[in-house]
Amino acid sequence: MELKMFILVLGLLVGSLMPLGGASGSPGSGTGQDECKKNNGDEKNGNKTTKKSFPVLSLNYENVRLPFEISLWVLLASLMKLGFHLMPRLSSIVPESCLLIVVGLLVGGLIKLVGKAPPVLESNIFFFYLLPPIILDAGYFLPIRQFTENLGTILMFAVVGTLWNAFFVGGLLYGVCQLEGTNLAGVNLLSCLLFGSVISAVDPVAVLAVFEEIHINELLHILVFGESLLNDAVTVVLYHLFEEFTNAGTITVTDGFLGIVCFLVVSLGGIVVGAIYGILAAFTSRFTSHTRVIEPLFIFVYSYMAYLSAEVFHLSGIMALIACGAVMRPYVEANISHKSHTTIKYFLKMWSSVSDTLIFIFLGVSTVAGPHEWNWIFVVATLVFCLVARVLGVIGLTFVINKFRIVKLTSKDQFIIAYGGLRGAIAFSLVYLLNPKHFPMRNMFLTAIITVIFFTVFVQGMTIRPLVDLLAVKKKQETKRSINEEIHTQFLDHLLTGIEDICGHYGHHHWKDKLNRFNKKYVKKCLIAGERSKEPQLIAFYHKMEMKQAIELVESVFPTTLDLF
Amino acid sequence: MELKMFILVLGLLVGSLMPLGGASGSPGSGTGQDECKKNNGDEKNGNKTTKKSFPVLSLNYENVRLPFEISLWVLLASLMKLGFHLMPRLSSIVPESCLLIVVGLLVGGLIKLVGKAPPVLESNIFFFYLLPPIILDAGYFLPIRQFTENLGTILMFAVVGTLWNAFFVGGLLYGVCQLEGTNLAGVNLLSCLLFGSVISAVDPVAVLAVFEEIHINELLHILVFGESLLNDAVTVVLYHLFEEFTNAGTITVTDGFLGIVCFLVVSLGGIVVGAIYGILAAFTSRFTSHTRVIEPLFIFVYSYMAYLSAEVFHLSGIMALIACGAVMRPYVEANISHKSHTTIKYFLKMWSSVSDTLIFIFLGVSTVAGPHEWNWIFVVATLVFCLVARVLGVIGLTFVINKFRIVKLTSKDQFIIAYGGLRGAIAFSLVYLLNPKHFPMRNMFLTAIITVIFFTVFVQGMTIRPLVDLLAVKKKQETKRSINEEIHTQFLDHLLTGIEDICGHYGHHHWKDKLNRFNKKYVKKCLIAGERSKEPQLIAFYHKMEMKQAIELVESVFPTTLDLF
Repeated sequence: MELKMFILVLGLLVGSLMPLGGASGSPGSGTGQDECKKNNGDEKNGNKTTKKSFPVLSLNYENVRLPFEISLWVLLASLMKLGFHLMPRLSSIVPESCLLIVVGLLVGGLIKLVGKAPPVLESNIFFFYLLPPIILDAGYFLPIRQFTENLGTILMFAVVGTLWNAFFVGGLLYGVCQLEGTNLAGVNLLSCLLFGSVISAVDPVAVLAVFEEIHINELLHILVFGESLLNDAVTVVLYHLFEEFTNAGTITVTDGFLGIVCFLVVSLGGIVVGAIYGILAAFTSRFTSHTRVIEPLFIFVYSYMAYLSAEVFHLSGIMALIACGAVMRPYVEANISHKSHTTIKYFLKMWSSVSDTLIFIFLGVSTVAGPHEWNWIFVVATLVFCLVARVLGVIGLTFVINKFRIVKLTSKDQFIIAYGGLRGAIAFSLVYLLNPKHFPMRNMFLTAIITVIFFTVFVQGMTIRPLVDLLAVKKKQETKRSINEEIHTQFLDHLLTGIEDICGHYGHHHWKDKLNRFNKKYVKKCLIAGERSKEPQLIAFYHKMEMKQAIELVESVFPTTLDLF
Repeated sequence: MELKMFILVLGLLVGSLMPLGGASGSPGSGTGQDECKKNNGDEKNGNKTTKKSFPVLSLNYENVRLPFEISLWVLLASLMKLGFHLMPRLSSIVPESCLLIVVGLLVGGLIKLVGKAPPVLESNIFFFYLLPPIILDAGYFLPIRQFTENLGTILMFAVVGTLWNAFFVGGLLYGVCQLEGTNLAGVNLLSCLLFGSVISAVDPVAVLAVFEEIHINELLHILVFGESLLNDAVTVVLYHLFEEFTNAGTITVTDGFLGIVCFLVVSLGGIVVGAIYGILAAFTSRFTSHTRVIEPLFIFVYSYMAYLSAEVFHLSGIMALIACGAVMRPYVEANISHKSHTTIKYFLKMWSSVSDTLIFIFLGVSTVAGPHEWNWIFVVATLVFCLVARVLGVIGLTFVINKFRIVKLTSKDQFIIAYGGLRGAIAFSLVYLLNPKHFPMRNMFLTAIITVIFFTVFVQGMTIRPLVDLLAVKKKQETKRSINEEIHTQFLDHLLTGIEDICGHYGHHHWKDKLNRFNKKYVKKCLIAGERSKEPQLIAFYHKMEMKQAIELVESVFPTTLDLF
């Protein structure tokens, strides 16, 4: 009964989307030019037509077109998400991302059937409206401790790994293109390298979508997800580098050197921009005790501005968002009210979840819409090289990394890291941005990228859960830390700092302790409102647990939902 | 120190807004045509320019212009709101709305000083993006019981009162225009009536902004606020009616009759559209128990679509939103999780609060920007007629209403109702929408409207608090209802229904009881997910109180904020 209803709703929704999707080619777009013209024109001319008698019921759709269509797409996305969870058998086998792509394909196909052009995932919409919520959600709730403890490993995979992938895939593809009989002689080396660098980057959206469903252990999760976040800087630099080179035609040694400088500027610049906005947000939240209601807004606006400011200078927006979220969080949480925190948390989750859904649906729709140029050799070569490069890269890098790690990465871990390297919509959007004049093979690239995305999302995404079960990879423990654990972790931290001090070895714990002291002595005083900064961490933690127990106690007596707050 | 900092921030923000505000004339606009061109053009041409060496740091502002400027305006609005609350002495005398208009005037003046054209509050942006959150917030949290109990009074003020005001002000203004020496002979009767109908409507945004600060008793609040909500239908119909007549030139008796039909269509149609979406939302929320995270989204999207759908057919969007919120709330609250409820509540409050702030700031900016046509006679006449019409209308209508009311409206009440009739941005936006070709006096109308808005917001808004204190008008009681009160209210309801049944009198309570039974027997079964509908109201209420006490107990031990949820 539920399945039927679900299909019915899908049909109805698609039916209502159909007349909309076509005309502008970009519903959900704030920048579609013809849409603008219509709106503006309508405003001025709509009242000119003189009618015989006063119209009791008149219709004026063009005016509300843009917001109405955006709402419809969002509604479609939410209903689909809802629908999948009503079919537990299906959603336990197939990941949501796959189902959403299928929905997108269906919707796109239906729109095409009616004779309209299905909309494409516009790069501007993707980068400015759909991606930021997902990254902010990830950045704000990033498990800082695990992230910093594994930062070396993550950076290795993100920087060296992505570079290796990009040049390996790009170089070999160029080799394939030079073979006779492939009709690919027009593809030059720079385009191949550009393509390689775009397709090498592991996609945070795809990784989140799949990894959140399989509940893998925290170490593997942070390694793969951290890589997908930090490789953004590498991808951005390589992308702009090869794009510029292709436009310019010549490459000098200086350019190569500037590329390395640029990498540092893009990554560190992004982090600095993010940190500045993060500190601003923390500082602002110090004064919000009288205006609780707009507290969440400051978090959203400052973060979004960090992302946009980074994008203005072609810095890494993703790293800016991560930095902003990570920097502001401890101070903001100490300043804002409990209910604002709930609002931020649930609103970010909601927003990122819908963005995510929309991205996958639009990927499906874009597949139906796009001008495709299918080349068997190129597509198969891309797919094979991607897989080979990933496997070789992970094995090679782990060999180096394991020399420095205390907890070594096992071969199971390596397999999951290699297998979890999913590609996604960022790669698609970057290629979509390419200028067809300089890149006549753009459509072929798009087709190849979509194929790789579909392969990783469908084949890898669907088989990773059974493989995780088969290999008995350690799963995530759902329990929260007890007070005992909290005390012992802190105790061990201090102990290790003491040992390092005695040894005269300035390691990880030494600098962490220095940073903590500096934070406590100066930063907290500036960024946290007066009376709260005095409460020791342990008491705050105890308080949290106490509160939770109180609520659980009441809820156990009355096992229903409440509308208290 | 705080004041200085505040001014510093204002200066910095305005400085950063200045280069932006000018060019397009409509920052925050999704439809500005030139902005679209730039974006589209940029996307395609941005990469054409070939540079000598690889640019380590490049700048591309046009691409992020639109979202960046929207964020900046939102940030300005939030910081202003924050700033006022840091100056308790100032904000206890001057209402926030006044301060925001002043900020808008300052920002507009600064933009003008630099030689750019300040942006104007575009009607499309106002009606499609700024107004809905405020109305949804009001509609979703509307005190249903008080609203229905006073529905007759509210309707009298909203329908008859607004009609009276419109024709009184419009007619007298036409008279004034006919006087010699006023240079207003070109203003015809229909334009005057149109102007009168627009300026007669009490504005929900202005009323909320002022009344929420003075904490007036619930009866007066719901009377004035209810009027401001329900008069939307009257205003919409009169506006379109006179607009059509002006365009057509001739009026027949049929047209007048159609006007009355149209009023019914617009108001009831709006309610029906809203109710349909409300039921859809309630029905959808029945199935969200597995996807808690997107629950709030359904509420927002369905409500917004209700508003837009009503606007497509020129029905009353405000009434659609109110109906949607009121219909969905009881069922949605029973279905969704406790945290989703917090998210909805706080997010709506945040959103409406920012919209509200932006509206008043933009009113100020628009005042500086606008092409003004100042006519002493017209402006003064408008202002005087508005005040006189309001006073006469309230006195006359109360005389009639008091014959039917059990709790009579005292002369103090009448004074507050008349004095609380604030005008606001809806009137401004409606006049702004007029086509200057058919209404050559549009600029003069705009100037007069702005004057009336400023007068009501500044003079009435600032003096209403001292007057309320002086007259010792009953204030709102902040305490929540105890279980005892809850039981007695329900008991009295049943008792009165029983008495009505015995008397054979089918009154208010009889029909309410019938509706309740119908709701319990059929509607709840469809719209509320299984296990929850069984819990009696009293136990749910007891549960709520219990939960609140548990949290208060924990919080009293640790008087700090928590980041538990």
